[in-house]
Amino acid sequence: MAKVHNYSAGPCILPQEVIKEAAEAVLNFDGLDLSLLEISHRSANFVSVVDEATTLVKELLEVPEGYSVCFIQGGASLGFLMSAYNMIGDNKKSAYINTGTWSDKAIKEAHFVGDVEVIASSKEENFNHIPKGYTIPTDADYLHYTSNNTIFGTQFKEIPNSPIPLVCDMSSDIFSKKIDISKFDLIYAGAQKNMGPAGATLYIVKDEVFKRNRIKIPTMLNIETHVKKESMFNTPPVFSIYVSMLNLRHLKSIGGVEAQQKINEEKAALLYAEIDRNPLFKGVAATEDRSTMNVTFVLTDESKQAKFDEMWKAANISGIKGHRSVGGYRASMYNALPVSSVQVLVDVMKAL
Amino acid sequence: MAKVHNYSAGPCILPQEVIKEAAEAVLNFDGLDLSLLEISHRSANFVSVVDEATTLVKELLEVPEGYSVCFIQGGASLGFLMSAYNMIGDNKKSAYINTGTWSDKAIKEAHFVGDVEVIASSKEENFNHIPKGYTIPTDADYLHYTSNNTIFGTQFKEIPNSPIPLVCDMSSDIFSKKIDISKFDLIYAGAQKNMGPAGATLYIVKDEVFKRNRIKIPTMLNIETHVKKESMFNTPPVFSIYVSMLNLRHLKSIGGVEAQQKINEEKAALLYAEIDRNPLFKGVAATEDRSTMNVTFVLTDESKQAKFDEMWKAANISGIKGHRSVGGYRASMYNALPVSSVQVLVDVMKAL
Repeated sequence: MAKVHNYSAGPCILPQEVIKEAAEAVLNFDGLDLSLLEISHRSANFVSVVDEATTLVKELLEVPEGYSVCFIQGGASLGFLMSAYNMIGDNKKSAYINTGTWSDKAIKEAHFVGDVEVIASSKEENFNHIPKGYTIPTDADYLHYTSNNTIFGTQFKEIPNSPIPLVCDMSSDIFSKKIDISKFDLIYAGAQKNMGPAGATLYIVKDEVFKRNRIKIPTMLNIETHVKKESMFNTPPVFSIYVSMLNLRHLKSIGGVEAQQKINEEKAALLYAEIDRNPLFKGVAATEDRSTMNVTFVLTDESKQAKFDEMWKAANISGIKGHRSVGGYRASMYNALPVSSVQVLVDVMKAL
Repeated sequence: MAKVHNYSAGPCILPQEVIKEAAEAVLNFDGLDLSLLEISHRSANFVSVVDEATTLVKELLEVPEGYSVCFIQGGASLGFLMSAYNMIGDNKKSAYINTGTWSDKAIKEAHFVGDVEVIASSKEENFNHIPKGYTIPTDADYLHYTSNNTIFGTQFKEIPNSPIPLVCDMSSDIFSKKIDISKFDLIYAGAQKNMGPAGATLYIVKDEVFKRNRIKIPTMLNIETHVKKESMFNTPPVFSIYVSMLNLRHLKSIGGVEAQQKINEEKAALLYAEIDRNPLFKGVAATEDRSTMNVTFVLTDESKQAKFDEMWKAANISGIKGHRSVGGYRASMYNALPVSSVQVLVDVMKAL
C-alpha cells in the first residue's frame, strides 16, 4: 500500500495495526469461525469487548470513582440533545459558550428543553478565538462548551472554572491529552476522531447526575438507560465499539494519553513553526487558542494556490482542503498521524 | 474456516462474499490506499456508497414515487421514539397492535408524545399468535405494528387494512419477502438482520408525512432532517452502510427479494415439517402465524434436552437457544442462512 499522509478531518486516520486487526475480526472473530458482524452482541465474546473498551476508557482517562462510561449511537449531534435532556434541572435554564458550528448546533437543541443563555461567543469574528472573561450564571443548570473546534482550529487550553455543572463535547480532542475528568458532570464524544470508526459515541457521566431532579426523558435519550445496561440496552454498534477497543489498546501500548500528548505537541509545534516562519502562510486561529488537532492556515499570496495544491498532492498528502466556512487549508493531526507525515507537509511548504 | 451453521437471532449471518469484501474495504477502500474507516464521509467515494445503498433499497423493495429512503443511527429502539415523534398529529393519539417485546417498547415511547390506544394484544397468551378481528380507531393519527416477532416466532401474514396512516417496525423481516410499500406511511428497520451489520437503521417514509401538521421535533429525531441531507446530516455509520450496500448488491445478484423469498419459504417449510412430524418437538407459535424468520419450538420430553443440546453442538450449529421469555429453542433463519444449514438441524432432530 502506498503511503498516504492522511489529514482527513474525520472520520480520520487510525493506526495501521488497528486497521489490520479490524479486518481480521471481520473475517474471523476471536477464533470462533464467525465474523464479528454475525455474532450476537450478547455473546460472551462480545460482552468482554464492551467491558474491555469501558475499562480502557477509564484507565486511559483516569476516570475517578463515581463516574460511569458508556457507548451510545447517534454521534455528538444526538449528544447535543441528550446532554440537554439529561442535564436540565429545576432552573430550566442552561449556559453555553459558542465557539463554532458544533456549539451552535448544541445551542439549537438545548432550546428544546429550556432557556439558553449564550454567555460568550466568538461568532462575530468567525470563531477565530476562544472567548475569555465571561461570567457564568449560577442560576443555570449547567455550562456547556466544545473543547476543540475542528472547523476553525481553536481549542480551549484551560477547562472553564465553573460554579455550575460542566458539560463538554470533546469529540475532536478526547484521548489527545490529559484531562481532569473530575471537573465535569458530563463528557460526550463521537468516536470518529481519536477513538475509532464512526457509529459509536462515548459518554462519561458523573453518577450524581442521575440522582437529581430531572425531566422525564424518553428511554433511548436517557443516558442512565445505557449506563445501567452497560451499553447493551439495545443492539450496540458492534463494529465501532470493537475497533475503538482495539485503538484504545493500541494507545495504552504506546504509553497512554500522556505519551500521545507529547507526540501531538511535537506535531503541532512543527507545523505552527513553519506557518509562523514562512511568509507565504498565515494561521487562522488566535495564537494562544491554536488547536493541536486541527491546524487552519491560508496562503498570503493567492496566486500560489495552484502550485501549492499540486505540490502537496504530489507528496501523497490527502485531506488538507479547508472547510468552506473558513477557506484555505486545514491539517487535521489526530493521534494516529505520524510526525513523519507532518514533516512531509512542512517540507512541501518550505519548497513552495 | 470450519462451517458453522449460524442461527443467531441478530446480529446474524451475512453472506460470505459480503464479509470478504467488507474485510477488504477495511484494508483498502476503492483502491484509495486508505481504509474505509479513515476516509471522510463526504468524499465522493463514500457519497456514492450511500447513493447506491439508497437506490438498491428502492429497487429491491420497489419503493414507489413519493417515498424517501434514509439511514439513521440508533436502531429500532430509537425508531420507536422517532416514529411516534414524526407521526403524531392533531389528534395527539396513536393506535398500536402489541405482538411482543418490541411492540411493548414502541408503545412505551409513544406515551411520550400522546395518548396511546393498544387496539389488540396477544400479551395474555405470551404473544404466541397475531391478534385478529380488531377495530382500528379512525381518530388516531396512525397505527403501528411489528411485522415479525423475533422472540416469539410470529409474523403478520397480511398487512393490516388500515383507514389511518400505517407505521411498521420491519427490523426482522424486511428484504425477506415482497411487501407493498404503498400501504405504509413509515417503515423502519434495524440493519442487523437482513440488511447489514448493527449500527444503521433504515427508514422508508412517505414524503406526505412531512407536509402534515406535526409537533416540533428536535433536529436529530426529525426524519426529514436525514431525508433532506441524504443520510449525511451528521457523520453516518459509515461501515454499517457500506456493508449493507454490499449485502443489498448481493441480494440483487441472486434475483432480488422474490428469489430470496422462495429460499426463505423452503427453509421454513423444511423445519416446520420436521417440528410437526417429530413427536419429540412442538412449535410455540400458532400455526397460521408462524414466522419464516424465527422458528420457536420446544422439546415435548424435557429429559431429552441434554442429549439434543449435545447433538446440535456436535453438528456445529450455533445460536438456537431460545429467548429466556419463551424457553426451548429458536432457529433464526435470516436471508443468508443456506437451506443446507437447515437440513443439518433437521437431520439432528430426526436422529434424536
